[in-house]
Amino acid sequence: MEKLPLGKLPKNVLIENVLSFSYVKDDVLLPPSYGEDGAVVRTKGNLIIAAADPITGASEEAGWLSVHVNANDIAVHAAYPKWYIVTLLFPEDTMVDDIEKVMKGIRRALNEIDGSLIGGHTEITNKVNDIIIAGTMIGEPIIPGEYITSSGAKVGDDIVLTKGAGIEGTFILATDFENELRKRIDEQIIDNAKRFREKISILPEVQIITENVDIEHIHAMHDVTEGGLIGGVFEIAYASNLSFRIYEEKVPILEPTEEICKFYHIDPLKLIGSGALLISVDSEISDEVINALNKAGIYAATIGKFEKRWDHIGVLVRKNGDEHIIDEPPIDELWRLLGLMSI
Amino acid sequence: MEKLPLGKLPKNVLIENVLSFSYVKDDVLLPPSYGEDGAVVRTKGNLIIAAADPITGASEEAGWLSVHVNANDIAVHAAYPKWYIVTLLFPEDTMVDDIEKVMKGIRRALNEIDGSLIGGHTEITNKVNDIIIAGTMIGEPIIPGEYITSSGAKVGDDIVLTKGAGIEGTFILATDFENELRKRIDEQIIDNAKRFREKISILPEVQIITENVDIEHIHAMHDVTEGGLIGGVFEIAYASNLSFRIYEEKVPILEPTEEICKFYHIDPLKLIGSGALLISVDSEISDEVINALNKAGIYAATIGKFEKRWDHIGVLVRKNGDEHIIDEPPIDELWRLLGLMSI
Repeated sequence: MEKLPLGKLPKNVLIENVLSFSYVKDDVLLPPSYGEDGAVVRTKGNLIIAAADPITGASEEAGWLSVHVNANDIAVHAAYPKWYIVTLLFPEDTMVDDIEKVMKGIRRALNEIDGSLIGGHTEITNKVNDIIIAGTMIGEPIIPGEYITSSGAKVGDDIVLTKGAGIEGTFILATDFENELRKRIDEQIIDNAKRFREKISILPEVQIITENVDIEHIHAMHDVTEGGLIGGVFEIAYASNLSFRIYEEKVPILEPTEEICKFYHIDPLKLIGSGALLISVDSEISDEVINALNKAGIYAATIGKFEKRWDHIGVLVRKNGDEHIIDEPPIDELWRLLGLMSI
Repeated sequence: MEKLPLGKLPKNVLIENVLSFSYVKDDVLLPPSYGEDGAVVRTKGNLIIAAADPITGASEEAGWLSVHVNANDIAVHAAYPKWYIVTLLFPEDTMVDDIEKVMKGIRRALNEIDGSLIGGHTEITNKVNDIIIAGTMIGEPIIPGEYITSSGAKVGDDIVLTKGAGIEGTFILATDFENELRKRIDEQIIDNAKRFREKISILPEVQIITENVDIEHIHAMHDVTEGGLIGGVFEIAYASNLSFRIYEEKVPILEPTEEICKFYHIDPLKLIGSGALLISVDSEISDEVINALNKAGIYAATIGKFEKRWDHIGVLVRKNGDEHIIDEPPIDELWRLLGLMSI
């Protein structure tokens, strides 16, 4: 097998090993093809939503993950992620197979969310030393003309969390440190932890909410990423100019997350957590939201409240009653752990 | 001055040194802001056009260039580039100043094309060893509902080129090898070559064409990038399933390009050439197109024709009458030169 040369891909590789993985729906009028630099898509209304997030350093299933993290950034706005466009930068010594793996992951994820790959750019470059997948997702509102932001939370809103804290961190740790963990933790728990990657999309809960509740009462939504649950709530509070109060005892933590976090002495509330959705909802209908989600098989719970902004951005009430003031987004526990390990 | 830590930017740096450079027009309903992961924009119709292109390795004015190369990919579809979203990956030891420089360049270019910065992602990462600017531009048709592709060229079309061959390569060489060139070539020619960067946008010619000609007669448009003029014509021919015939003597080559190419023994027809637009136009109205462009101060000339596809994709007729068969996109002369230099 041949290594690919630096620069844009050779024409035949681009056509046979990249463009052949294109996955487009009917609304893509000009799909990716050799010699075309742009894509043309047909929207349903006059609002579009766009977001960009790179994956740097993930390897296995990186392409798949890149679609879902970008799709989640669209879904939080009560929108369907539809059109994916991706810049792929591969380091020297990349083989055609490496590219195909990423493309397969992208196609699989787009299939799961019913989206299209509409374009991008692929290049071998000595400016990177790992695969960089810089994706941009474009979508449109589920309910025409309506969208939700991070900044709309209101005083008195309930803060609802779906699934649990630290979903993404749980499967990253279970995958990266599998051998170490299998020696100390029940095999089945590790197997479960690895399957958490199947929970990564928050599109299902967004669809359930928009179908079952008048979204006028959903004031803000945000996904849980770096900095974990606390980081996500912090961002809503900051954007909405409110303060938050969260109760540790109310936060759902799934068994694999609990076991793995205990083993590494890390706080699941500050662990990278894609897969969970934060919802700031009128407290009068939070039960309605939770019931609709539970009925569809997605666990959800109220974990706290938004208050008028006071001296601090937030308070985390620990199980023992201690109140921790929070004025800065937390450093993610995953980075802290990896930092400790590299010393 | 402090070096920035690995990972996402600290909140205050993101707010003060990145988001403060946001530049948004009225159609951006949800602009970039701390705690928001997506942007919401209002379109005029139901068609949008998207394209992605990274800048790796360029340094000075890299941000500015990243907007224009992406804007050009939208403009070739007879569309306005409007909404820019950018993933910025900076290497270790990056200072706040480095980030501000890129942001200033992005803002300046968006100002020039009347577009908005709607979002993105900024991160310091040890996975890159130079600044990576992975941009995505979203736009919409200049004439509602209509767009042009690379694949629509027709048998008998005239191939029109604006400005000249090797525009981008000329200013890259004049900038990167300024000292060497100033010893051998007239100072004023080098100064002119460096000013070629002002020619990089093809949006002006696209606007003139759409305003002055019924775009039914414009069958394909493409910009000149890697592989130069020949690469661009090759891509149209390939996408349209035609063959091309180009005459070297008809290709406009500006004096600085000619002098610099002569000095380095490179072929301007195969030199990276953003800034020039290729137009495949019904031969009955090619004069009308050229006149409209000339009247607006943009030089343009017919350089060849598209023919029914025969045994080869294209023929380049040299000034001495020699016919060169072309069946593969050419290696860009800039990469060939830099390759020779590094031996």
